[in-house]
Amino acid sequence: MVFGRFTMGRGHLRVDVRAGLSLVGTLTAALSVAHIVPIIVSLAYGGEDLWVFVATFVLTAAVGLSLRQLDPHPEPGAREAFMVVALTWLFAAVFGAVPYVLAGNGAIAQPVNAFFESMSGFTTTGATVMDNISLDHHSHAILMWRQLTQWLGGMGIIVLAVAILSEMAVGGAQLMRAETPGPGVSKLTPHIEQTARVLWLAYVFFTALFIVLLYALHLAGFAENMTLYNAFAHGFSTLPTGGFSPEARSIQAFSPAVQWLFVPFIFVAGVNFVLWWHVLTGDPRSLVRDAEFRLYLGAVTVLSAVGAVVLFTSSLETVDAGVVGGQLERSLRYAVFQIVSLVNSTGFANMDFYEWSGPAKAILLFAMFVGGSTGSTGGGIKILRWLVILKTLRRELFTTVHPDAVRPVRMNGRVLNEEAVRGIYAFTLLYVVLFFVGIGLLAADAARVGADLTLLDILSASIASLGNIGPGLGEVTGPMGGYGSFPTTSKLLMILYMWIGRLEIFPVLVLLTKAYWRS
Amino acid sequence: MVFGRFTMGRGHLRVDVRAGLSLVGTLTAALSVAHIVPIIVSLAYGGEDLWVFVATFVLTAAVGLSLRQLDPHPEPGAREAFMVVALTWLFAAVFGAVPYVLAGNGAIAQPVNAFFESMSGFTTTGATVMDNISLDHHSHAILMWRQLTQWLGGMGIIVLAVAILSEMAVGGAQLMRAETPGPGVSKLTPHIEQTARVLWLAYVFFTALFIVLLYALHLAGFAENMTLYNAFAHGFSTLPTGGFSPEARSIQAFSPAVQWLFVPFIFVAGVNFVLWWHVLTGDPRSLVRDAEFRLYLGAVTVLSAVGAVVLFTSSLETVDAGVVGGQLERSLRYAVFQIVSLVNSTGFANMDFYEWSGPAKAILLFAMFVGGSTGSTGGGIKILRWLVILKTLRRELFTTVHPDAVRPVRMNGRVLNEEAVRGIYAFTLLYVVLFFVGIGLLAADAARVGADLTLLDILSASIASLGNIGPGLGEVTGPMGGYGSFPTTSKLLMILYMWIGRLEIFPVLVLLTKAYWRS
Ligand SMILES: [K+]
Ligand SMILES: [K+]
Repeated sequence: MVFGRFTMGRGHLRVDVRAGLSLVGTLTAALSVAHIVPIIVSLAYGGEDLWVFVATFVLTAAVGLSLRQLDPHPEPGAREAFMVVALTWLFAAVFGAVPYVLAGNGAIAQPVNAFFESMSGFTTTGATVMDNISLDHHSHAILMWRQLTQWLGGMGIIVLAVAILSEMAVGGAQLMRAETPGPGVSKLTPHIEQTARVLWLAYVFFTALFIVLLYALHLAGFAENMTLYNAFAHGFSTLPTGGFSPEARSIQAFSPAVQWLFVPFIFVAGVNFVLWWHVLTGDPRSLVRDAEFRLYLGAVTVLSAVGAVVLFTSSLETVDAGVVGGQLERSLRYAVFQIVSLVNSTGFANMDFYEWSGPAKAILLFAMFVGGSTGSTGGGIKILRWLVILKTLRRELFTTVHPDAVRPVRMNGRVLNEEAVRGIYAFTLLYVVLFFVGIGLLAADAARVGADLTLLDILSASIASLGNIGPGLGEVTGPMGGYGSFPTTSKLLMILYMWIGRLEIFPVLVLLTKAYWRS
Repeated sequence: MVFGRFTMGRGHLRVDVRAGLSLVGTLTAALSVAHIVPIIVSLAYGGEDLWVFVATFVLTAAVGLSLRQLDPHPEPGAREAFMVVALTWLFAAVFGAVPYVLAGNGAIAQPVNAFFESMSGFTTTGATVMDNISLDHHSHAILMWRQLTQWLGGMGIIVLAVAILSEMAVGGAQLMRAETPGPGVSKLTPHIEQTARVLWLAYVFFTALFIVLLYALHLAGFAENMTLYNAFAHGFSTLPTGGFSPEARSIQAFSPAVQWLFVPFIFVAGVNFVLWWHVLTGDPRSLVRDAEFRLYLGAVTVLSAVGAVVLFTSSLETVDAGVVGGQLERSLRYAVFQIVSLVNSTGFANMDFYEWSGPAKAILLFAMFVGGSTGSTGGGIKILRWLVILKTLRRELFTTVHPDAVRPVRMNGRVLNEEAVRGIYAFTLLYVVLFFVGIGLLAADAARVGADLTLLDILSASIASLGNIGPGLGEVTGPMGGYGSFPTTSKLLMILYMWIGRLEIFPVLVLLTKAYWRS
């Protein structure tokens, strides 16, 4: 009501805050239904933390439905979309943190840590501040809720990426409309709801298939600890390129067979889900017709091959993973898994890659700046943007010599829209600027409190939050570590970065401009 | 002559290769005159290596004058400018390497190492592969030649940046013409020769002043080892933001008084020399009127202050520099010196900053991506580009909300040319792409030969060569280390990167396109 009166009181305010908040309320209320999952898990495991999820469900639903009352017939426009997108993720993260605070076990019960873990979940980042990740210390329901936040976040992201950002023409996302091969998204499904249903079908299909196959491996005797619980838990965090695991040692906790099964599903999560819809409806060739998919496949293949050779020819011998150098299957498994997992920002680990040699880690750093495909659940700068950048830079060299030549750049057979190219340039530069600003701020903050962090920890925290990757390449930010030792202010910055990064930066940042709130 | 016949034989070849090579020959011959300096030094110190410089002088002059004969009356156009710029630096580096090979002492006598050191000199990078940097191991003449290559490179760079690149409209350099306050460069001096004379006057003035002041400190008893030789040596490598020193421990070898004296002169080297010309001719206010200068001053001040607080509040205690934490003058001296030295790509060190804490090193990494001003001898992305990027990204946020609004961006009171903005975006993205590609290639190469390099060494090698900085933040690439342990192929890549980076990327890369050589 306060917001409502605020709107009415200032005639030149153009954003319909009531309509926006009403829609955010509806979405929050819808999200509260998801608590059915931890409630079932709790009941299945003796009712531990049951009251926590019942209480959170009631609270979330009540706040959501109340907000909805602000405007019974909201008609949000393009302007309100920024606010709705940004606030929906913020509300999800805030209410998603409640169970961690209520269930109260260790670091995660502290409110900023709980908010961090929840934002990390809903943004499918996978960075953690939880200590003692184990069913010995946390209830089945809490750890499953953590996994579920990623799956819910992933559902939101594919709809956001395909149906909403493309209409908002943010950071070159309008290319999605024009460049997807076959019938365009907008032709395919005139309404967001229909687009969402189509994409979610593919998302649910792959999730279910993965859970079934993981559990089948267990039943067949190839994966002792891949219980039904673990199959669901990892099913929930793979397709959203999430990277959370209820196992402290991530995917290293499982057998090689399980690790290999993860690879294709992690890969799938980084592909445009519009393409998967085409594949599942009988047009598998739309995959290879897509330039972004080809570059994604090529990048993963080349980097994996290089990584495998580097590991194989190394003398790497680790405490937990044994000898790697000279071992063909291991070198291949560790390289392929870590490359696909870091390229598309999943962040799962099947070994502690902090132990890798400098050159091997440098290849992982390179991988971390690639990103997933547009329309996937992957984060980062994204393949399509790199593709456009590489193609237009070639043109830039040409026009340097022939300044008057007009030379359109083509992709998937169509001429690239120059507005979209400008948007992509601006997005990528903003990303780079934020990456460095993050390093500067995190460094100053770490020095302020005397936190014992390495340069690579600080660099990792910036890129792993902004790119929604999760783990980093430093001593404490490595895949077997976490962000618990970062100062509270740094955690708040990382929360902001996860939020900004997940929503392709612009929808959040425009809310901070005067221009957004005035006409 | 071969090139000449090549031109004649293919009618569709438009570049006048003869004219271009003739001009390169003239410039190479002119450069050979510089050997007078090491010859004088050699004579002053008993004639050691005298024959080396006489021989190199004869060789360089002979090749230069021969090339000149290819076209007695060359009329090179805009097209040939790319070739002339790129080849002049390449020739300078190749012939500059000859004394290292001939004088033959340690690693530097090996041809690729000699080429590396020479390219590092003429590009004012300051990365070294020399072992035992000391007058005990190398002659006075050789070590002075090494310093001189930087001073000559710096002379070339200011003319290139102010008078040539701006006309080639490369990477947004055309802003130089429009945005420099006061009378524009082109108005000021219609010919390159006149512009060069004006800029060199400022360059020589500051160099001479610095040498005089350094030696004055020596005579006054504040700098025992700042001999006349050392005063000249460091005068030659400061104004070009070079960073070479005949002392193995760089500026740490000198007293605090000397270290403080370096600070303003390193700072001066990162400022647009057109502004210095205005200041020296009686218009000091043109400095503060310039937005780029204000941002440069602001960045150095803020980063220095942060760095000083970080060092002061740390518990840093080093072997060579003693206790730093809690020591006000030391914290200030080390922070201010290293920030100004790394921001504008000079690369001098007054202590081994590899020993700094992670957060302190992260601030140095941030500094390394800033760069000098346009029209200065500094390398990197450069302040003006960041300024344009920050200003236009703000606009991008505005137009995200108001897609139809036309909102020109202003700098120094004038509207920014949108073509130049596009050039700046493309340049910066190309820089980022090359940085990551460098990391990938150096990593693969290091793994190939099993070189024991850390991730930070590899990252440093990429940015320190591309940005013409010199030292890096890794274990072997730190300010007291060098690139000697890198594989030969990596050294060749770094040579390419120094060359590309120094010439603002485009002039070298266009030579690799078909479009350049065809009509
Ligand atoms: K992730
Ligand atoms: K330098």
